[in-house]
Amino acid sequence: MASRYAIGIDLGGTKILAAVVDAQGNVLAAAKKATQAEKGPEVVIARIQKAMDEALDEAKLKKDRIVAIGIGAPGIIDSANGIVISLTNLPGWRNVEIAKSLRRWHTVPVSLSNDVRVAAVGEHRVGAGRGVHSMIAVFVGTGIGGGIIVNDKPWVGFRSSAGEVGHMVILADGPYAPGGGIRGGIEALASRSAIDRDLRTAIAAGRKSVLTDLLKEKGNGAITSSVLAKAVSKNDPLTIEVLRRAAYYLGLHAASLINAFDPEMLVYGGGVIEGLGEWIVAQIRDVAKQHAINRTALDSVKIVEAKLGERAGAIGAALMALDALKT
Amino acid sequence: MASRYAIGIDLGGTKILAAVVDAQGNVLAAAKKATQAEKGPEVVIARIQKAMDEALDEAKLKKDRIVAIGIGAPGIIDSANGIVISLTNLPGWRNVEIAKSLRRWHTVPVSLSNDVRVAAVGEHRVGAGRGVHSMIAVFVGTGIGGGIIVNDKPWVGFRSSAGEVGHMVILADGPYAPGGGIRGGIEALASRSAIDRDLRTAIAAGRKSVLTDLLKEKGNGAITSSVLAKAVSKNDPLTIEVLRRAAYYLGLHAASLINAFDPEMLVYGGGVIEGLGEWIVAQIRDVAKQHAINRTALDSVKIVEAKLGERAGAIGAALMALDALKT
Repeated sequence: MASRYAIGIDLGGTKILAAVVDAQGNVLAAAKKATQAEKGPEVVIARIQKAMDEALDEAKLKKDRIVAIGIGAPGIIDSANGIVISLTNLPGWRNVEIAKSLRRWHTVPVSLSNDVRVAAVGEHRVGAGRGVHSMIAVFVGTGIGGGIIVNDKPWVGFRSSAGEVGHMVILADGPYAPGGGIRGGIEALASRSAIDRDLRTAIAAGRKSVLTDLLKEKGNGAITSSVLAKAVSKNDPLTIEVLRRAAYYLGLHAASLINAFDPEMLVYGGGVIEGLGEWIVAQIRDVAKQHAINRTALDSVKIVEAKLGERAGAIGAALMALDALKT
Repeated sequence: MASRYAIGIDLGGTKILAAVVDAQGNVLAAAKKATQAEKGPEVVIARIQKAMDEALDEAKLKKDRIVAIGIGAPGIIDSANGIVISLTNLPGWRNVEIAKSLRRWHTVPVSLSNDVRVAAVGEHRVGAGRGVHSMIAVFVGTGIGGGIIVNDKPWVGFRSSAGEVGHMVILADGPYAPGGGIRGGIEALASRSAIDRDLRTAIAAGRKSVLTDLLKEKGNGAITSSVLAKAVSKNDPLTIEVLRRAAYYLGLHAASLINAFDPEMLVYGGGVIEGLGEWIVAQIRDVAKQHAINRTALDSVKIVEAKLGERAGAIGAALMALDALKT
């Protein structure tokens, strides 16, 4: 039997990634396009189709070899009906029947899921969590999200909203997250936007930092993960202090997850982790182990970096779409 | 075929409960004995056997109708080998082969599990969670523990230590739990021992409270759940203030569980909840709903009181023992 392929799509606020993926999770080809989110759903859907065309072209495959399409989107999703209820950072998406639109491009089953959940599935199946039976992926970017794998399968929850690990309270009555969400939740303490807030507050209060120069070079833009990494490499005391505190909170959060759910592995991904790598993962691991209640678990819990980078979501979406064909 | 029965045992620091249970979770008879924990494992195991004899006697069953024994014990358990590694509040229990000892009483398979996990199973199968597919039980007593049900089955975790929901951090750098555990964890904030600590601290600092008289009547003993309930019924401002704060933290903890895990139901049991009932569960529910991230989930998440009271553990242990026969 000829191999069957799926196209996986990671729909983000700034970019769309489409990948042609086989049943083993290998990427045959991938294409990236700017989302142009400000132009609204119709344009964005056309951009997704263009990305799929390009990926298919690069893979030198005819469309009929694609048996399923999987898409991960950042927001509230009605997976059962293939409808996007609303998206974070993509204006105008209200009850958009995206599965139906994509079936117009190619008449195959379309699976729609949360962007972070598909990334967790990607990491589980062919990334850091390969062969692991239970894991929680934590993605630390502008916000913090995650995905849970139980008995080798994604745990989607009763209302399909499981995995919002960014909104676990770690510091009751603590700060609000810049993007909303729960007061004192880990997103409010350790996301890139929380780190950005803490750094700017300290600089505004007179703390010296190489960030002041680094941001001037960039025209005072956002404190991206690569700016953070550069400041750390220059041993900037303020950046290191703020990131250490974020890592401390992430470690308490990891300990909470370990104590409550006892997964085989925690996987850390997202921009902040990709930028800082083992430097920050090691800190999270140390704090988590100090706060794990079951002393016998200390040595066996694996706390590791994600492996697939920006492709995790597209790969996971494609694999979930292929899985859905079997059921 | 004649009905098959199991004996379920809840081994506690102060009492042992043995119940004869059928496959539907009905209790035919139950017997309670003081544990006499201070006399060490050998005496305690003899007390367990006496409780089983009495329960069997009261059920008017011959021993050969019992096809399995299930036991829940408060501590670190090696379920696979039927060995108690160590127990909380029961001195001298180090690597005790309890399954082997109980098979001497009757040669049937013995299932050993964590006391809180078996109580969660009891509540799931025949208590508040009947018919629910995913739930988390939170037991608020001297400590705080829990049990997780995923896809109708207990989720035991990778190292069999899942369910330590009492050791999720809710207030980073907060107080330590009187019984040890994690700093700022929910056990350190809202368990009976944390409530006791906060009340005594306030009274020592000069706050007036009816507790002073209530405890004198009892010879200055522990602030039990029934003392708390009495103080609330007398509208004692200090007790109400301390319990409201505990309920607030429990609500943040509930929101964290809902956001991360999205279970169909949260079930609250244990002494503090039994003593205060819907008065405290309603507060937990309100705070949880205010802090749940998925607004569409607000109305559908069920936050309810446990139903089986002190029998939950024995019933759950018996049902888990019967389940184990099938596999």
